[in-house]
Amino acid sequence: MRATVIHAPHDIRVEEVPDAAIQRPEDAVVRVLRACICGSDLWAYRGEAARQPGQRIGHEFLGIVEETGSAVSGLKAGDLVVAPFMWSDGTCDFCSEGLYTSCVHGGFWGSVGFDGGQGEAVRVPHADGTLVKLPAEAVSDDQLLTGLLALSDVMGTGHHAALGAGVRKGSTVAVVGDGAVGLCGVLAAKRLGAERIIALGRHTARTDIAKLFGATDVVAERGEAAEAAVRELTGGHGAHAVIEAVGTEQSMRTAVNITRDGGAIGYVGVPHGSGTGLDLGVMFDRNIALRGGVAPVRAYIPELLEDVLSGAIDPAPVFDRAVSLDEVPDGYRAMDDRSALKVLIKP
Amino acid sequence: MRATVIHAPHDIRVEEVPDAAIQRPEDAVVRVLRACICGSDLWAYRGEAARQPGQRIGHEFLGIVEETGSAVSGLKAGDLVVAPFMWSDGTCDFCSEGLYTSCVHGGFWGSVGFDGGQGEAVRVPHADGTLVKLPAEAVSDDQLLTGLLALSDVMGTGHHAALGAGVRKGSTVAVVGDGAVGLCGVLAAKRLGAERIIALGRHTARTDIAKLFGATDVVAERGEAAEAAVRELTGGHGAHAVIEAVGTEQSMRTAVNITRDGGAIGYVGVPHGSGTGLDLGVMFDRNIALRGGVAPVRAYIPELLEDVLSGAIDPAPVFDRAVSLDEVPDGYRAMDDRSALKVLIKP
Repeated sequence: MRATVIHAPHDIRVEEVPDAAIQRPEDAVVRVLRACICGSDLWAYRGEAARQPGQRIGHEFLGIVEETGSAVSGLKAGDLVVAPFMWSDGTCDFCSEGLYTSCVHGGFWGSVGFDGGQGEAVRVPHADGTLVKLPAEAVSDDQLLTGLLALSDVMGTGHHAALGAGVRKGSTVAVVGDGAVGLCGVLAAKRLGAERIIALGRHTARTDIAKLFGATDVVAERGEAAEAAVRELTGGHGAHAVIEAVGTEQSMRTAVNITRDGGAIGYVGVPHGSGTGLDLGVMFDRNIALRGGVAPVRAYIPELLEDVLSGAIDPAPVFDRAVSLDEVPDGYRAMDDRSALKVLIKP
Repeated sequence: MRATVIHAPHDIRVEEVPDAAIQRPEDAVVRVLRACICGSDLWAYRGEAARQPGQRIGHEFLGIVEETGSAVSGLKAGDLVVAPFMWSDGTCDFCSEGLYTSCVHGGFWGSVGFDGGQGEAVRVPHADGTLVKLPAEAVSDDQLLTGLLALSDVMGTGHHAALGAGVRKGSTVAVVGDGAVGLCGVLAAKRLGAERIIALGRHTARTDIAKLFGATDVVAERGEAAEAAVRELTGGHGAHAVIEAVGTEQSMRTAVNITRDGGAIGYVGVPHGSGTGLDLGVMFDRNIALRGGVAPVRAYIPELLEDVLSGAIDPAPVFDRAVSLDEVPDGYRAMDDRSALKVLIKP
């Protein structure tokens, strides 16, 4: 089969690899209908996250079950399924608590020896615990299928950030990061009943999506000017709930500085380096909480799925470009130079 | 009157200062019956927190109202009162939310121009919002009075840490720090229904108090050995709720490493330096939350007071030495060399 392989920073190729195949009784093989490129894939692309030459890449996909191992009981060939960005057994202590990302048998797509999502098919370990069935009829609705793909990562990650930030009915929320996750954070905050949602971003193509998703205010300034603008919009005090969806020193500092005393930062931007931009002294004096991390999206898919199916939320607009499998390297380049927000892959 | 003054690191003196007196209509003057020395006073004593030569010191006291300003309505001369470690107006947006430490008119005892708690009397700004009345009969019960003094800081701070760590009925809790705050964290966790409380500490005089307060296990190891011991006591995974009551790089690192994935650190140790010991990458991967900061003890006094009065909790054992006002410099030396846990002052 053909799949995306990373050989070195900026060297992404689509090439022939061994067919995805059942290796263990809990496995399924899924033929990929939709995949995409994640902002976090860019860290590997740019060489900021280490990869072994020849590793697969991509961790967001949905598709049709092609084959199941002998121990798989909840799925059968022909099922339409979406995969969260990590696999998990669904039965360990952590999975039982909903923290699927800490599953004792969990792992990441594209790890050495495992298929990535950006290919024709994927071997799925612990298929029963990992995959979530979708209504078969969704396969014929392109917009719906695209929205459902967002459940594999960005929508659930935005939701995790909103929960971490403590968003609830009537909240004032500020969102740092105008990437797909930040935008999904806006949508998640709106869904949770936030009254006021301030999106920080300078690119109107992105902030227009933020508005579509429920942002009531857009702050186009950067750095201290952005902080001052958010404070001005919030009676001088900042937002109770802040979503941090970037992960850099600057973005974390901005998040702290626009959080109201006693508020919380829901952080889902993968941190770059240790202690990134955190001034614990400032957080201490102002009782600012920090909650979040790698999102256990598997836990969120069922409830978010209902809202995508009903049309209550539609994350599809975060995908602003579509490519074929062969065009995946172009997709990386487009996301790397920020000419694309999030690239959809139709293998 | 006589009061404690800090002239330079390690130069603490008790000397004649101007009498505490009403300056504003919201003021009260409180004659101090009990005060004490805080672990955080040691940072000034050691020169690690800057003070202007001649500043007063001490932020924990209870006593008798001697005089009230014309705008004070809830207190009168003769009332027995306890003061939280910051004053607050009790009416601003933050006070209304219970975050008294962010009061827009709040401040710290011993700030330049203000009395400290380690003296014969204190001018209390915003007396109505700050002071909490105690039953008059407590004045004749030495043990009770000592327990009530703990409400000014350590008991409420331990409670704040336990809340930050998410302690609830049945929780497994680990406590980093065997100072008075850490020990009060044990007591607070027990009060909130924790089932298992693991106290980290090497000094049996302190860990004996931890046991008295409800610790079910004591870990005497340090560093990585302590982390391994806590993991072994918790099925390999760590504690869901971790109280951090030190504030150093090492203690914060220990706290992160003994927190179960998906758990929370309630931190109340004043951070020394920025980003102290925090590896955000580790916290991110394991969804560890960080909550806490300077404790709004004013919010907690009413509920904790009931339990001290009923005998349900007695924090008095954290005071293991008593001195007169003139002996306060000896008290600092004793806490600095760790021969005393927490020094009570009877002016």
